[in-house]
Amino acid sequence: MDINEKSFALGSKRSIIREIFEYSKTRAGEIGADKVFDFSLGNPSVEPPAEVDKAIKELLLTESATALHGYTSAQGDLAVRKAVSDNINSRFNLNLTPDYIYMTCGAAASLSICLNAVVNKGDECVVFAPFFTEYRVFVENAGAKLIVSMPEEKTFQINVSDLESKINENTKAIIINSPNNPSGVVYTEKTIKAVCELLERKQKEYGKVIYLIADEPYRELVYGNVSVPYLMNYYANTLVCYSYSKSLSLPGERIGYVAVNPQMQNAKNVYLAVCGAGRALGYVCAPSLFQRVILKCINAKVNVEAYEQNRNLLYNSLCEYGYECVKPDGAFYLFVKSPLESATAFYEMAKKFEILVVPCDDFGVSGYVRIAYCVDKKRIENSLPGFKKLAEILIKK
Amino acid sequence: MDINEKSFALGSKRSIIREIFEYSKTRAGEIGADKVFDFSLGNPSVEPPAEVDKAIKELLLTESATALHGYTSAQGDLAVRKAVSDNINSRFNLNLTPDYIYMTCGAAASLSICLNAVVNKGDECVVFAPFFTEYRVFVENAGAKLIVSMPEEKTFQINVSDLESKINENTKAIIINSPNNPSGVVYTEKTIKAVCELLERKQKEYGKVIYLIADEPYRELVYGNVSVPYLMNYYANTLVCYSYSKSLSLPGERIGYVAVNPQMQNAKNVYLAVCGAGRALGYVCAPSLFQRVILKCINAKVNVEAYEQNRNLLYNSLCEYGYECVKPDGAFYLFVKSPLESATAFYEMAKKFEILVVPCDDFGVSGYVRIAYCVDKKRIENSLPGFKKLAEILIKK
Repeated sequence: MDINEKSFALGSKRSIIREIFEYSKTRAGEIGADKVFDFSLGNPSVEPPAEVDKAIKELLLTESATALHGYTSAQGDLAVRKAVSDNINSRFNLNLTPDYIYMTCGAAASLSICLNAVVNKGDECVVFAPFFTEYRVFVENAGAKLIVSMPEEKTFQINVSDLESKINENTKAIIINSPNNPSGVVYTEKTIKAVCELLERKQKEYGKVIYLIADEPYRELVYGNVSVPYLMNYYANTLVCYSYSKSLSLPGERIGYVAVNPQMQNAKNVYLAVCGAGRALGYVCAPSLFQRVILKCINAKVNVEAYEQNRNLLYNSLCEYGYECVKPDGAFYLFVKSPLESATAFYEMAKKFEILVVPCDDFGVSGYVRIAYCVDKKRIENSLPGFKKLAEILIKK
Repeated sequence: MDINEKSFALGSKRSIIREIFEYSKTRAGEIGADKVFDFSLGNPSVEPPAEVDKAIKELLLTESATALHGYTSAQGDLAVRKAVSDNINSRFNLNLTPDYIYMTCGAAASLSICLNAVVNKGDECVVFAPFFTEYRVFVENAGAKLIVSMPEEKTFQINVSDLESKINENTKAIIINSPNNPSGVVYTEKTIKAVCELLERKQKEYGKVIYLIADEPYRELVYGNVSVPYLMNYYANTLVCYSYSKSLSLPGERIGYVAVNPQMQNAKNVYLAVCGAGRALGYVCAPSLFQRVILKCINAKVNVEAYEQNRNLLYNSLCEYGYECVKPDGAFYLFVKSPLESATAFYEMAKKFEILVVPCDDFGVSGYVRIAYCVDKKRIENSLPGFKKLAEILIKK
């Protein structure tokens, strides 16, 4: 072919989520949007906090337009990076400076940049099933091989002995995503400590650095008293990929950051490699208006309670009907065991009840579906009779 | 090294422009910003048109916040893409549909994505000196080899016979940047026709496609009656990389697009490869608020006259003092022959007069400096005595 085959393949094979999303739009046209119970997309349903609107209006009023919309330095505006590092320091008792923060166009950019910063051809990168499908794309595009570690049964915590069996002298990085997409699981401190101890041991054994990349777009979306360990406090060679897509409900604005742990081996060089990777991929700077919005909204919060209510309603109802669900402590996904052996078969059957869920084979775990409950509560309520009937048909009591 | 050496090298070697910019800030702190005549950065000095501010405020008022700041489809919001394709069609008498428009995070992203869409390892990509230094970064990151074609003397038009000598069976693409950064030259229709005829001939000779990538962030910044040929009208296998950074003075907001010519061989597949390349590089969608701003401001224009006045003042004055300048028909750069053999030596000498210009050796032409006149007119006026003294010292009459 005249063009790049990998790019063509990635562009022509839509992700299953996007496929379902397109079907949903068509079906809504046929029977009405309120009759289609679409749980496919991780698009926040909760409004951005009021501070965002206020911040934009203030910035338009008080800043010169050429400065507000002008280039910032490639790593991001200094005041913005300072606000980010101060925020991390105060929350997690650390000592980052703005020189270790690199503002990005969201979590996908953060991850793509981190991988291109540390990975060389032939390296391996371990991810934990179930994992966000795009990890494969970013890891392979950076030239590394994706290695999948299987989780503990039922709890879906990291299985540390499985992880150990997946680490070898080629392992360059592991990606931890907690709260997890698609399972909603938050890895416990016990799990994290065990993983970090293993990594320390393996670093010594192979005499090389293994980077821990923390992908944290869902950090702020946790329920009850659950806390999410901050990985820099457990492991020196940690890079954090953050995004405000979910924490401020701004997924389309593409704003996030990479934080490099100053305690990391050769931290300054790793940061420079992050800058260089961003440059090579065509990122000039993160969107300038929204950098300043972040500065003004660094402590703003979306209404997490709305997601928690959705979780409670959906989780409790589905458990009551007999479904086997992983209890999500965070994010806005419910991971449900398919009552049929094939998740795709269950997906097709649910479709007959106008319920759209995502079969998770591409996420590295077969026999499960993901239900994104970042939707209006009514949609959940109206979908419940369908879920109940499906259970009556499919689940043996 | 544990990290990726190429990324590290790109991050640790600052571009000369950034170096000068940092020096400028330090020097301004020492003697006052009004005493430093910094002509290093291509950051628009002209305000965005009033329509931009109005559009943002209207959008905040009329759109739901979750929709306004939510994900758009990966290729961009359909209504926005339709506005873009309609705009191209009406201006250049073409028949694009939204299915050939892919919204991007600005020109660098557009270019990086196009290259990753069409280039394979071992391919060659021809650029025309003088060329924007980042072309090398993007071409090499896509796995291709950068080949530099030298221009006509004095006019800095493309030298078609030099180009012919640089094309071979490995040539996959050429990048045309007109109005040109750093020369300000607009390639004439005669030049463009000759280039396109050559490309057609070479495609036949080698039995393969050679893509023409038009990098057009400066298209709207032209002076007098000069017109910039729209390359899709001259050559079928054309991709256009556009950005609103300069045309609407929004460089920090990272908003632009790729347009694929529907007349291109396998146009649909090339478009899919563009989508796939964007996905692989970590671009999820172009910033959503500014996509909608573009929809509302598609016909808005910055005050090009201000740049034209700057050009006239600077070009006329420097010619009068005896400098040899390339007359710029567009963009906001003046390309000046260094009175000393080494452009770097001239740069250092000009620095003593607090004048900061960019030596252009990295742009593929030695012995020239670039003066970015996207500055307040006063800065030019106040710098003229320094330029005059330098001429008196260095230029033999």
